[in-house]
Amino acid sequence: MLSVDQARQRIVAAFGPLESEQVALEDAAGRTLAADACARSDQPPLSVSVMDGYAVRSADSGPRRVVGSAPAGHPFSGTLGPGEALRLFTGSAVPEGADAVLAQEDVHRDGDQLSFTEMPHPGKFIRPRGEDFQAGAPLAPQGKRLAPRDLALLAAGDLATVEVRRRPLIAFAATGDELSRPGEPRKPGGIVASSVYGLGGLITQWGGEARDLGILPDRLDAIAALAKEKCDLLITLGGASVGDHDLVQSALGPKGFTLDFWKVAMRPGKPLIFGRLGATPFLGLPGNPVSTMVCAILFLRPAIAAMLGSRTGTTTRHARLIGTLPANDGRQNYLRAQYEWREGLPWAKPFARQDSAMLKIFSQADALIVRPPHAPALDEGAAIEILDLD
Amino acid sequence: MLSVDQARQRIVAAFGPLESEQVALEDAAGRTLAADACARSDQPPLSVSVMDGYAVRSADSGPRRVVGSAPAGHPFSGTLGPGEALRLFTGSAVPEGADAVLAQEDVHRDGDQLSFTEMPHPGKFIRPRGEDFQAGAPLAPQGKRLAPRDLALLAAGDLATVEVRRRPLIAFAATGDELSRPGEPRKPGGIVASSVYGLGGLITQWGGEARDLGILPDRLDAIAALAKEKCDLLITLGGASVGDHDLVQSALGPKGFTLDFWKVAMRPGKPLIFGRLGATPFLGLPGNPVSTMVCAILFLRPAIAAMLGSRTGTTTRHARLIGTLPANDGRQNYLRAQYEWREGLPWAKPFARQDSAMLKIFSQADALIVRPPHAPALDEGAAIEILDLD
Repeated sequence: MLSVDQARQRIVAAFGPLESEQVALEDAAGRTLAADACARSDQPPLSVSVMDGYAVRSADSGPRRVVGSAPAGHPFSGTLGPGEALRLFTGSAVPEGADAVLAQEDVHRDGDQLSFTEMPHPGKFIRPRGEDFQAGAPLAPQGKRLAPRDLALLAAGDLATVEVRRRPLIAFAATGDELSRPGEPRKPGGIVASSVYGLGGLITQWGGEARDLGILPDRLDAIAALAKEKCDLLITLGGASVGDHDLVQSALGPKGFTLDFWKVAMRPGKPLIFGRLGATPFLGLPGNPVSTMVCAILFLRPAIAAMLGSRTGTTTRHARLIGTLPANDGRQNYLRAQYEWREGLPWAKPFARQDSAMLKIFSQADALIVRPPHAPALDEGAAIEILDLD
Repeated sequence: MLSVDQARQRIVAAFGPLESEQVALEDAAGRTLAADACARSDQPPLSVSVMDGYAVRSADSGPRRVVGSAPAGHPFSGTLGPGEALRLFTGSAVPEGADAVLAQEDVHRDGDQLSFTEMPHPGKFIRPRGEDFQAGAPLAPQGKRLAPRDLALLAAGDLATVEVRRRPLIAFAATGDELSRPGEPRKPGGIVASSVYGLGGLITQWGGEARDLGILPDRLDAIAALAKEKCDLLITLGGASVGDHDLVQSALGPKGFTLDFWKVAMRPGKPLIFGRLGATPFLGLPGNPVSTMVCAILFLRPAIAAMLGSRTGTTTRHARLIGTLPANDGRQNYLRAQYEWREGLPWAKPFARQDSAMLKIFSQADALIVRPPHAPALDEGAAIEILDLD
């Protein structure tokens, strides 16, 4: 049986960056850069005043004569001469010849005469051209997922569009004669297909495009029909336990399914199928909803990141344990837990119940405590590795 | 001048929860519940097997006789009698009469004869009806912003739709004769309006609906025309420094603008206007993009949360300081900083440059270090309060 890390490496290795596309900057939040985004102009594009006040030449002496006013967006056309001052506002262009700005509150103006006591040093209250960055400077690297503040930066770099990766199209189907949709009449002995709603939301959150193929009965022809789907990754939910695995293999084998691996040494979620259906990568996730989502976090998220050309993966951090934990068996364990902040530092308390079908606990959890295979028993306060949910 | 907390309280007090609307569960990720979501059915809705195996009566003795097979979704119609066993699969309904499941790997079957060595205790490998939750149970509280795993939980509770708050409509306009859009010809002495792209992305991220009203010239009639906008909150960018403030007041005063406050003791972003334009709350944010976004995090995010009936606000956590910091003046300071993780704990290093126009640094920052007014100088390793970005 593969370890979690081995399984993840095998999955990630099956994906490469998708093609790129241009999107308008205002639509680029959450998208991933397909190339380094470089500035097309200096920022600021000209030297500007950071105060309401007066541009002067710092080397001059004595009071100055105000020769005009240049609000932001209405620059002075000439060059500031000896003894001259120009009225400026926040964001006004600093005129040629000037090298300092006097703040309005530090001067006395009488007609066109301007007096002040403290001489500004050169550069005072001026934001020089190119101070933030210069034309050609790299602003954000290939593979970065763009946050709102990155959009502001790229706008300042004069980029109206950006080159991003196409969103990976992830198609998924729940399999099982027992399944129905919420709000629909329940089947005899049946249960609601809940995993699909969680999975769809996660795919969107991670930058993919989710396509819900619906609920399939446990019939060879219904499952075999998945082979016609065009997508970047095809997922079945609930097609991975022993009987289902046989069914998926029987249904998809004649359609060109090749198995990479089945089963991972982990809990929740041991049964996990990975392979290829023709040219399309295929992932069979366990159907119990907590298993579905934990496996999606561990395996699907890095696969989507690989398609986006991003390194965003599964990063853990440290916390301390509330309560105690027994020694672990040979399967890597992911325990649902809640945080408590003590003196600003994270402590995590595992829920007493860890059943892979208990969605209410999963909804209330803040994090997963990662327990490696054969990890020793732990006492209160022990250092633990945690994986943030959300 | 108001403190940050005073200003935030005055702003939040101006907003209440918006009306609610029903949305389909699959569209509910990121929406905020307008009422407690309660289960419409037990979960699981019936007692099910968690293994491939055989349902038995634990009180019987000796080998059992297999009387049938009941795959998931095909429940056994009768009651299991003394000495009988029923073939089950993961997710199969446990028949009446049975109280335990034997795992397939623990039994030997010969025709319809089933033998095994270890007798299961009652309840073994059965997930009982209602174990996760029962019909009527509250699943998620009013004011909760729904994550993907909450959708799975609500689906399991048989909810096809959920009652959520309408998204607050936030309209914003940048003001300034010097401004143009990225990619367009630059105006003389002009600069790109970058803040609008960051602000639009943040509004969407926080659950609002962003409406970009464009760039307005510094003219009374253009600004006065904002009074006709129908929205839940109207924002100007760059309308808050001294001259702009006068312009906004002059333009909007005749349209029914009433000022609540102007100026907050903070850095970046001292000039901040809050008031009402007729019945519509009005927020004038500073135009320097870092100031715009820091003020949005501090004041707009809680306003949106208040409209969503949520308590999500601005929460800080603790870290340790890399480097040293001088004593602070009377303005609460928000320093852009990067994390370093040391033994799993967060340390934060402020950038040397903290200019409110430096977007590249803001894009690279992980967090803001919060420095209260008159905070003392700090040495390396001092405990600090930080606000995560993203």
